[in-house]
Amino acid sequence: MPGALWIVGLGPGGAELRTGRATSAVRDADAVVGYGPYIDQCADLLGEHQLVERSTMGREEDRADRAVALALEGRRVALVSSGDTGIFGMAALALRAAAAVPEDERPAVEVVPGVTAGTAAAALLGAPLGDFATVSLSDVLVPWEQVESRLSALAATDLALTLYNPRSRTRTWQLDRVRELLLEHRDPATPVALATDVGRADQHVDLSTLSTFDAEAVAMRTVVLVAGPTAERVGPWLITARGR
Amino acid sequence: MPGALWIVGLGPGGAELRTGRATSAVRDADAVVGYGPYIDQCADLLGEHQLVERSTMGREEDRADRAVALALEGRRVALVSSGDTGIFGMAALALRAAAAVPEDERPAVEVVPGVTAGTAAAALLGAPLGDFATVSLSDVLVPWEQVESRLSALAATDLALTLYNPRSRTRTWQLDRVRELLLEHRDPATPVALATDVGRADQHVDLSTLSTFDAEAVAMRTVVLVAGPTAERVGPWLITARGR
Repeated sequence: MPGALWIVGLGPGGAELRTGRATSAVRDADAVVGYGPYIDQCADLLGEHQLVERSTMGREEDRADRAVALALEGRRVALVSSGDTGIFGMAALALRAAAAVPEDERPAVEVVPGVTAGTAAAALLGAPLGDFATVSLSDVLVPWEQVESRLSALAATDLALTLYNPRSRTRTWQLDRVRELLLEHRDPATPVALATDVGRADQHVDLSTLSTFDAEAVAMRTVVLVAGPTAERVGPWLITARGR
Repeated sequence: MPGALWIVGLGPGGAELRTGRATSAVRDADAVVGYGPYIDQCADLLGEHQLVERSTMGREEDRADRAVALALEGRRVALVSSGDTGIFGMAALALRAAAAVPEDERPAVEVVPGVTAGTAAAALLGAPLGDFATVSLSDVLVPWEQVESRLSALAATDLALTLYNPRSRTRTWQLDRVRELLLEHRDPATPVALATDVGRADQHVDLSTLSTFDAEAVAMRTVVLVAGPTAERVGPWLITARGR
């Protein structure tokens, strides 16, 4: 009997921002596969009867292959990621692994969307987004020049930006370069928020500006939100209203 | 006693894609305010003890003011929108109305993020997004020239696009103009998906191309997803892998 592969976005943090479908998929799964911290993120849903496989960072292809292999053994498998699994998550790799299986043997596949960290960070600030773009700063799989070219083009628009994977242990200078690129077109006083561990008990948001934000305060789990030129401080909130 | 204002994104459709926090906010509210179809969307959570106020399209400012007024009477108010309330939803208007209240009388305010229709549509297709931009085609509050200028700038990048509010009874020609603008930079064979009523029982997704998609098949509740130049058909899915 062919199993099932559920590629699940858990939302940005705790159970509160998880969808009903993400919850039922993890609960109903025979096997749950994911990067360790994402397994921890859904620990409240796991039971003794489940095979739980924790994986390490950088083993994304292995994790995708393993999830498909378990589904081919007849298991219902939840492959879990933080946020939305289609936004710099596991969905593309897992679907590619599933597509390599001949169609008549392929398990049933479902991609379960989630709340992504960028819009959850926006909600903490108010309503800063308006039209916006979502860009990963990781150059692990993409040449840095390509990331720069995207950011230069976006800098010249009035879109807000949510920037993912802004920094890692080895990628430390990129964010200052991003600041330079944006400053070619955007006001130094543009609001910039650094939102870390959104949706978790220890979430925090630092609001400063494009010229002053502290790149050293950014972690891999931080989303950097750059407001558009029409964003305003209104009471305690940052708002981009339509038609301003 | 000051009340509370919860500005709630219900997710794109049914209960399955609603977050736990959206569910608890609507359930715990003394008053629920929203555009009629969004009240219907959370009807399974409503009870006899609640004041439920249905509003009509185009009355967004009234709805925001009313929600704040009810909170000032001491009620816990859920102001509900579809999708993510910060993505072309009610959050900006409602926060502006709340900010007009003197700080010491202001109710407690929480913005509850949700799964937005664009990423839910992406999940139905596979993992088409990669880096992407989210743009509203509505020119009700924004000059159409400004919308065009955003789209022209984005057309020249390799970002995927999720386009909201693509059409209404009175806005019927814009989508063909969008096609023209995108074709100045993008391949006519670029995959384009029209995703309507995502997350509802009658959801449907039509996958065609930039040159052939049927603008007449688009409704106000459709999200138009334009893949980036590196999207691929892999098995039954549309995928944009990082580093391709």
